Amino acid sequence: MKNKIITFGEIMLRLSPENNERFTQCHEFEAVYGGGEANTAVSLANFGVDCGFVTKLPEHSIGQSAVNSLRQYGVDISNIVRGGDQIGIYFLEKKTSQRPTNVIYNRSGSAIALAEESDFDWDKIFKDATWFHFSGITPAISDNMAKITLAACKAAKEKGLTISCDLNYRSKLWSSEKANKVMSELCPYVDICIANEDDAVGIFSMDASKSDKEKNAYIAEELTKRFPFKMVASVWRTETSITTFKLQSMIYTEGKAYYSKEYFMNILDYIGAGDAYCAGIIYSIINNFDPQKTVEFANAASCLKHTVSGDFNLVTVDEVMKLAFSASGNEVSR
Amino acid sequence: MKNKIITFGEIMLRLSPENNERFTQCHEFEAVYGGGEANTAVSLANFGVDCGFVTKLPEHSIGQSAVNSLRQYGVDISNIVRGGDQIGIYFLEKKTSQRPTNVIYNRSGSAIALAEESDFDWDKIFKDATWFHFSGITPAISDNMAKITLAACKAAKEKGLTISCDLNYRSKLWSSEKANKVMSELCPYVDICIANEDDAVGIFSMDASKSDKEKNAYIAEELTKRFPFKMVASVWRTETSITTFKLQSMIYTEGKAYYSKEYFMNILDYIGAGDAYCAGIIYSIINNFDPQKTVEFANAASCLKHTVSGDFNLVTVDEVMKLAFSASGNEVSR
Amino acid sequence: MKNKIITFGEIMLRLSPENNERFTQCHEFEAVYGGGEANTAVSLANFGVDCGFVTKLPEHSIGQSAVNSLRQYGVDISNIVRGGDQIGIYFLEKKTSQRPTNVIYNRSGSAIALAEESDFDWDKIFKDATWFHFSGITPAISDNMAKITLAACKAAKEKGLTISCDLNYRSKLWSSEKANKVMSELCPYVDICIANEDDAVGIFSMDASKSDKEKNAYIAEELTKRFPFKMVASVWRTETSITTFKLQSMIYTEGKAYYSKEYFMNILDYIGAGDAYCAGIIYSIINNFDPQKTVEFANAASCLKHTVSGDFNLVTVDEVMKLAFSASGNEVSR
Amino acid sequence: MKNKIITFGEIMLRLSPENNERFTQCHEFEAVYGGGEANTAVSLANFGVDCGFVTKLPEHSIGQSAVNSLRQYGVDISNIVRGGDQIGIYFLEKKTSQRPTNVIYNRSGSAIALAEESDFDWDKIFKDATWFHFSGITPAISDNMAKITLAACKAAKEKGLTISCDLNYRSKLWSSEKANKVMSELCPYVDICIANEDDAVGIFSMDASKSDKEKNAYIAEELTKRFPFKMVASVWRTETSITTFKLQSMIYTEGKAYYSKEYFMNILDYIGAGDAYCAGIIYSIINNFDPQKTVEFANAASCLKHTVSGDFNLVTVDEVMKLAFSASGNEVSR
Amino acid sequence: MKNKIITFGEIMLRLSPENNERFTQCHEFEAVYGGGEANTAVSLANFGVDCGFVTKLPEHSIGQSAVNSLRQYGVDISNIVRGGDQIGIYFLEKKTSQRPTNVIYNRSGSAIALAEESDFDWDKIFKDATWFHFSGITPAISDNMAKITLAACKAAKEKGLTISCDLNYRSKLWSSEKANKVMSELCPYVDICIANEDDAVGIFSMDASKSDKEKNAYIAEELTKRFPFKMVASVWRTETSITTFKLQSMIYTEGKAYYSKEYFMNILDYIGAGDAYCAGIIYSIINNFDPQKTVEFANAASCLKHTVSGDFNLVTVDEVMKLAFSASGNEVSR
Amino acid sequence: MKNKIITFGEIMLRLSPENNERFTQCHEFEAVYGGGEANTAVSLANFGVDCGFVTKLPEHSIGQSAVNSLRQYGVDISNIVRGGDQIGIYFLEKKTSQRPTNVIYNRSGSAIALAEESDFDWDKIFKDATWFHFSGITPAISDNMAKITLAACKAAKEKGLTISCDLNYRSKLWSSEKANKVMSELCPYVDICIANEDDAVGIFSMDASKSDKEKNAYIAEELTKRFPFKMVASVWRTETSITTFKLQSMIYTEGKAYYSKEYFMNILDYIGAGDAYCAGIIYSIINNFDPQKTVEFANAASCLKHTVSGDFNLVTVDEVMKLAFSASGNEVSR
Ligand SMILES: [Ca+2]
Ligand SMILES: [Ca+2]
Ligand SMILES: [Ca+2]
Ligand SMILES: [Ca+2]
Ligand SMILES: [Ca+2]
Ligand SMILES: [Ca+2]
Ligand SMILES: [Ca+2]
Ligand SMILES: [Ca+2]
Ligand SMILES: [Ca+2]
Ligand SMILES: [Ca+2]
Ligand SMILES: [Ca+2]
Ligand SMILES: [Ca+2]
Ligand code: NI
Ligand code: NI
Ligand code: NI
Ligand code: NI
Ligand code: NI
Ligand code: NI
Ligand code: NI
Ligand code: NI
Ligand code: NI
Ligand code: NI
Ligand code: NI
Ligand code: NI
Ligand code: NI
Ligand code: NI
Ligand code: NI
Ligand code: NI
Ligand code: NI
Ligand code: NI
Repeated sequence: MKNKIITFGEIMLRLSPENNERFTQCHEFEAVYGGGEANTAVSLANFGVDCGFVTKLPEHSIGQSAVNSLRQYGVDISNIVRGGDQIGIYFLEKKTSQRPTNVIYNRSGSAIALAEESDFDWDKIFKDATWFHFSGITPAISDNMAKITLAACKAAKEKGLTISCDLNYRSKLWSSEKANKVMSELCPYVDICIANEDDAVGIFSMDASKSDKEKNAYIAEELTKRFPFKMVASVWRTETSITTFKLQSMIYTEGKAYYSKEYFMNILDYIGAGDAYCAGIIYSIINNFDPQKTVEFANAASCLKHTVSGDFNLVTVDEVMKLAFSASGNEVSR
Repeated sequence: MKNKIITFGEIMLRLSPENNERFTQCHEFEAVYGGGEANTAVSLANFGVDCGFVTKLPEHSIGQSAVNSLRQYGVDISNIVRGGDQIGIYFLEKKTSQRPTNVIYNRSGSAIALAEESDFDWDKIFKDATWFHFSGITPAISDNMAKITLAACKAAKEKGLTISCDLNYRSKLWSSEKANKVMSELCPYVDICIANEDDAVGIFSMDASKSDKEKNAYIAEELTKRFPFKMVASVWRTETSITTFKLQSMIYTEGKAYYSKEYFMNILDYIGAGDAYCAGIIYSIINNFDPQKTVEFANAASCLKHTVSGDFNLVTVDEVMKLAFSASGNEVSR
Repeated sequence: MKNKIITFGEIMLRLSPENNERFTQCHEFEAVYGGGEANTAVSLANFGVDCGFVTKLPEHSIGQSAVNSLRQYGVDISNIVRGGDQIGIYFLEKKTSQRPTNVIYNRSGSAIALAEESDFDWDKIFKDATWFHFSGITPAISDNMAKITLAACKAAKEKGLTISCDLNYRSKLWSSEKANKVMSELCPYVDICIANEDDAVGIFSMDASKSDKEKNAYIAEELTKRFPFKMVASVWRTETSITTFKLQSMIYTEGKAYYSKEYFMNILDYIGAGDAYCAGIIYSIINNFDPQKTVEFANAASCLKHTVSGDFNLVTVDEVMKLAFSASGNEVSR
Repeated sequence: MKNKIITFGEIMLRLSPENNERFTQCHEFEAVYGGGEANTAVSLANFGVDCGFVTKLPEHSIGQSAVNSLRQYGVDISNIVRGGDQIGIYFLEKKTSQRPTNVIYNRSGSAIALAEESDFDWDKIFKDATWFHFSGITPAISDNMAKITLAACKAAKEKGLTISCDLNYRSKLWSSEKANKVMSELCPYVDICIANEDDAVGIFSMDASKSDKEKNAYIAEELTKRFPFKMVASVWRTETSITTFKLQSMIYTEGKAYYSKEYFMNILDYIGAGDAYCAGIIYSIINNFDPQKTVEFANAASCLKHTVSGDFNLVTVDEVMKLAFSASGNEVSR
Repeated sequence: MKNKIITFGEIMLRLSPENNERFTQCHEFEAVYGGGEANTAVSLANFGVDCGFVTKLPEHSIGQSAVNSLRQYGVDISNIVRGGDQIGIYFLEKKTSQRPTNVIYNRSGSAIALAEESDFDWDKIFKDATWFHFSGITPAISDNMAKITLAACKAAKEKGLTISCDLNYRSKLWSSEKANKVMSELCPYVDICIANEDDAVGIFSMDASKSDKEKNAYIAEELTKRFPFKMVASVWRTETSITTFKLQSMIYTEGKAYYSKEYFMNILDYIGAGDAYCAGIIYSIINNFDPQKTVEFANAASCLKHTVSGDFNLVTVDEVMKLAFSASGNEVSR
Repeated sequence: MKNKIITFGEIMLRLSPENNERFTQCHEFEAVYGGGEANTAVSLANFGVDCGFVTKLPEHSIGQSAVNSLRQYGVDISNIVRGGDQIGIYFLEKKTSQRPTNVIYNRSGSAIALAEESDFDWDKIFKDATWFHFSGITPAISDNMAKITLAACKAAKEKGLTISCDLNYRSKLWSSEKANKVMSELCPYVDICIANEDDAVGIFSMDASKSDKEKNAYIAEELTKRFPFKMVASVWRTETSITTFKLQSMIYTEGKAYYSKEYFMNILDYIGAGDAYCAGIIYSIINNFDPQKTVEFANAASCLKHTVSGDFNLVTVDEVMKLAFSASGNEVSR
């Protein structure tokens, strides 16, 4: 049976100054489109997987540009609902040495935030689909979106799709209390959970310091106690110097934790690495990789995302494989 | 007594593709800030007039950038209220031969649209002020803003300020019915009205074709019948070929119409020409220009705005004077 | 029956200096992708028509970028053959007043120029298709391509597709003699011929000056004498001043010529206007427009192409309709 | 009593190639404005301090642009004298790994270099002022400027202002002998001296290697022996690898040295870090920070300047405080 | 005998905002190099003529970039003296509809303005040379430069070179009185004079309105009465609408005036057209064109300069010939 | 006797996305020209050495731009043959952390690849020349080019020129077998061989691991056993972290290896470092540097190349000397 992945969420216009400028000195913005679940969809499409993204976007030509940004990489956009007046926007000031990333949202009032349950016909959307993916951002967008996400989960479960969720806690979008309440309703439908310590703390008030276990393994274990997750996957980035970060991943499945090797990275773009990781996990599972290969593949996919500007992970399976599993270096080939 | 002008309205982030690109092909936006009353304030400041702009903007650094864009040209920003979450945005696709200008608004939900009456202390704002200017866009932003504008007019009138209003009808912001109702309440406070045929048709359903008079004079006369305007001023742009437009102005005062000469222009930027005209009218009146000099100065100011990219009219009094009243051409001076 | 259009030809990387610079002073190139039949496909896709483009492109990521440039606007790229080493490139120096457009080709040795007949399975390509479009550039690319185009015509005819051909004579690609020989073999398969005077002179040595008839009508009549064309369509651009051109079109069908109105244009991009015209003709026919509506629609589509930078006509049916048939001007709508 | 800081010096047009290009390959320059004392003024204005900058600039619109660059960040520009013909310019080629920064001055003949004593009315300038700041660059500009700076110091002292001076030795502007002579006349007026080892060596031929003390403390002690400084403050940058520098500061007051923590930085812009440090010192003193808090605040301010392109330190007090005193990292907040 | 042309003057760094921006809104400058005599040298080199440019430039890498800008087009730079500290700079704000060109000079204090007579060894410079060209800007730069130019003329005359001079009056550089005095000393050495009405009025107070003759012919006749010119050549540009200018030329030789045809141009760059005209005149004479061919060639060369951004005329002899003498239009060749 | 160096090979148009973008997201290319032997020529010209580059380029203006790119830095281009239709192109995607450099060639069919032996008159080319340099890329371009290179070597040897060759193995251009065969014919003519381990493995299947000697010394020794090389020089780059590389060089002459110091670099541009090294070796030899000074100079030249974008090493002898032999750091000089 052919795999068909559906991801659901918001795609925004991302505006960032060139050359690490600050907002207060910039006079033009680099414009790309992105958002957690859209990013995962593009990454999967770049891996050659049949993948569709579902959202609601205005009919005007900025909305169309968001659609085209997905279509250019082969994402199926036939289930994007068109309507509403505004597109969500986020402004991004890039981290520069001691100066941290600054994100300013301009997304309340977007078409998807104001979407209604009746906008989405999940029977039609899930026709031929085998997998449903969303992140914790989607139900956080609005009360309606929380309801719609629940409806999507129910429909997906009914149709026998695998469901994956990146917990992706965003404190600027909702409180821990609200996140706890909503995510606790959604998680029972989820098969594959992507979560890291911040998510577990923010949503479920878990405290990894209580245990002697490695933090991510502890959290994964706790999560599987609460919810019927078949797998919990984590990726984490540690600052090792002002110019380098270390990236490592873990997957926890059938009571066992598998750890990837570490990458020491110099980061071009800090956004979307978790979304690329989700795509790596999904790709691995639908291709029946064993747990160790899965965690290496997803970790390498996430590592490469850090080298690509914009939200989208524009890399091929070959490139991920070469980084993850090939001894050969990264010299100029000519 | 020293003149101090206060203008009130919304300043937005304006995003436009470079090089006449369409939205669906652009990947970066030129970013400037602008809006009717802000534009008028900047133009007056560039004329050396003491001028303040009043609005509400978020505290974040995009809001700060809007503030700075005004401050750089010398506008007094001390009465800008800071608060709210979002800044209004408009996307601008530039007219290119047969392809018309395309404006997409992303302004509902902006700080000023959600502003409360209590945000503005008109006693403090109008301290030392001699003139209050707004346009029909300001009360169109939201019901609250209509109320706030009325409160501002009342306070201004009480304090003896001259009040000017550019009718500036925007069909994307409100219906003719609503505009008629709100503007009919505001106009009794207005001394100087800037209006053109579109405004008169859109708001007051006037029909210049009923009369044999020149259209702008007819409308001015009709407006002065309804409201206690001391002057009605109009500027209009006529397409004379695909690359040239003709600009002309009229002012109507004490029952008489005065017409400016015409300029045949090649237009660099279509936005803000009316706002620059308002600044020209205000500058002329506070400098006691006679009606003919007034209409020539304001018309030349508006003409030069068409040569400056962005919303703001970055020209000096000397430059306007030279265009309006000097025989010498525009050869390279070197 | 749902329409499905297939176009066939070469898509190249187009490199042009910014800001009307000359090649000898430029240090960066604007990069877009384009080519006659690809341009027609994109225009049709932007009109909402199901349309596929067929070519051969290298597997490398420049080849992929050409694919993505089509996919982003919704062109079906599933029948693009991947292989070969090089992509065709053309350098474009833009016309600037008295300085003419300069095109330098770097396309010999491209994947499509070296393509083999066995690369294309026309049975599969034409499955569900209703229309086949190519231009005179396609058989001019190489001897193999002339053979492949003939095979495509035969297969299309056999399957009952409508066939359209833009004669598009390119003296830099082949001689009049060779063009005459090859096109004379292809034209018998063609139903709808797009041709202008230069094409008729270059390929068939027709001489409109021999007749008293309007030139385009004369040529159309002559062409229909030689070939079983159901329609001949022409569009022509006349320099009316150093900044303006006049655009007009004619279609000739069932022995009668229909002329469009004229547009006086200021041109942003000189390339692809004929290809946009072809898309206008095809769209009109599959929507059963009458001849006069057809010529107006196609002429307006071609006019708007002149306002869009790049090879592709990024306009919607609504925009073409508004220009062609609506009285309202092109003022800022806001 | 409200603080009002006055800084005095030259503001230049800074021209630098994009993307670390060399002068011999660049074709466009990023244009910003900057200069030691102007930079300090902007940084203080960004900290919310009332601050004015004094200089002389031509009336033309490049001069006006320099004025506007200050005004946009809220610096009081009402005491800038307008006149003269030229603006000082400096060309900046950015350090790139082993290739050092290259600065080319084009500033002799600037309006401020040719300024006369009569250009500045210090009574008027210092009205309401509480603090006067200049650097060793100001008297180095020309003989006239040395005299004018002395006049300013005398007037400031008479009016009871606190006076700070960044020694800022520039070997391209004057010899050690001349610097020694002039600075020895000015330093007796100075309360707060900012100085590092290079300055002490260049101007006063001090030799820190003679002593066992930490170099900066030694120099501070020596300076306080010669001049009646209440505080000497230093900041120094040490190359720790080809991509990282270490930044640390010291203040010496009442016979005691206080050291800040160290920052390991990746540098975006090498210019203006000392000027930002001066602003940090001034801000700390007028806010009555204790010596340890002062040195940490000023050091963090200087650290953040390295992350901002251009001469100006575009950071807020909150941002400096967060870096200097908050445990939380610099993760994306969203 | 092979022709070798020497031109002498100042080459400056030209800084202009992109996209018709004003100085007060621009944040980056397009950087090219240019100056009257350098422009003429580059144009001649592009025509394939052996041509050297003489000036003085600093040794630093901005000076080197000016040298390289000439060398890249094949100008002989072996006689450029290196020394001094500053390069001349001019800021250029481009004419935009009613807004005139604005030039701000930053050239006093440049290496060439401060050059000494001993910097130039005319015997060496004129070795193998056949022609010496300068313009009225060169002696206007400084008193020393007036002396040096006279020395050059004497040396050239002694060696039998043809001498051409473009009067090129610049009111920003010197008064009419001074120009008259200096140019009256230089003109007796000149064989070929390029002059238009502004030059004749500015330097020699000629008044063409006194005569019934065509203005340029009148001036040429008057000039030949005063000085031993073998030819006087003029080019003039007339504004015919806000978007178009008319260009026409005249040469007067042996008592007779020859007029070129007219070009109606849309202008990309207003600078250097006179310098390109000089190159056209010199090229024509050394190739023994008859007067009518000379005036057409030079006029067409000047016309094409208006289509090239920057000071330099980057066109070939073929391109000039095609415009001047070929019937064929300027359609896309492909 | 004055040195005159001739280098021979292909110069290509290099197209690379800005800002570390991937090909699949870029919309404009930075355009420079480069190629191994051209790069060496430019570097030598920047060192003040008389140097000519020989190749074949089309007559069109892209070909001319390649010529101008060399001429601007003073390379003698009088022996470049003009003809053919296409210029070689290479696309460059820059290495970004774990993502490796990606080079796509579009060079088959270039003028030089199709050049004939008769295109080059080596007697004329080598007139006054003292040194001939080429790299292993030149004979790899085509069979003809292998023959032409051999002819050049024979002519050079006959005329007594010193011959240097950078083995520069390129697996994308030819197989090891073919490289072995061709290079074995050419090497007997070579005096100075530049080679690193990859070259020795790729062309001569040498295996440094067989020996206990330092790898580069082993290879140099082996090469001198096979061929009459007077010197073998190597430079190698080792990744020391994701942001830093170590650069070191060795020269082997008269049976002895000399090693340079190491540089730890952060790399701006990965291309052309070997070519810059060759220029450093040649410069050292013609200036009679001793072996240790030679290896330090060439290593420092190569190090600086990593800091310059584009293929060319735009540094002076002074800059190389300062890095190689001066203790002083790389602080801002001002
Ligand atoms: Ca995300
Ligand atoms: Ca996440
Ligand atoms: Ca407006
Ligand atoms: Ca208006
Ligand atoms: Ca085409
Ligand atoms: Ca055509
Ligand atoms: Ca400084
Ligand atoms: Ca300092
Ligand atoms: Ca000139
Ligand atoms: Ca002139
Ligand atoms: Ca190379
Ligand atoms: Ca190599
Ligand atoms: Ni800009
Ligand atoms: Ni910019
Ligand atoms: Ni960009
Ligand atoms: Ni794009
Ligand atoms: Ni820009
Ligand atoms: Ni560039
Ligand atoms: Ni661009
Ligand atoms: Ni550029
Ligand atoms: Ni260049
Ligand atoms: Ni550029
Ligand atoms: Ni820029
Ligand atoms: Ni910029
Ligand atoms: Ni700015
Ligand atoms: Ni540019
Ligand atoms: Ni870009
Ligand atoms: Ni672009
Ligand atoms: Ni761009
Ligand atoms: Ni660029």
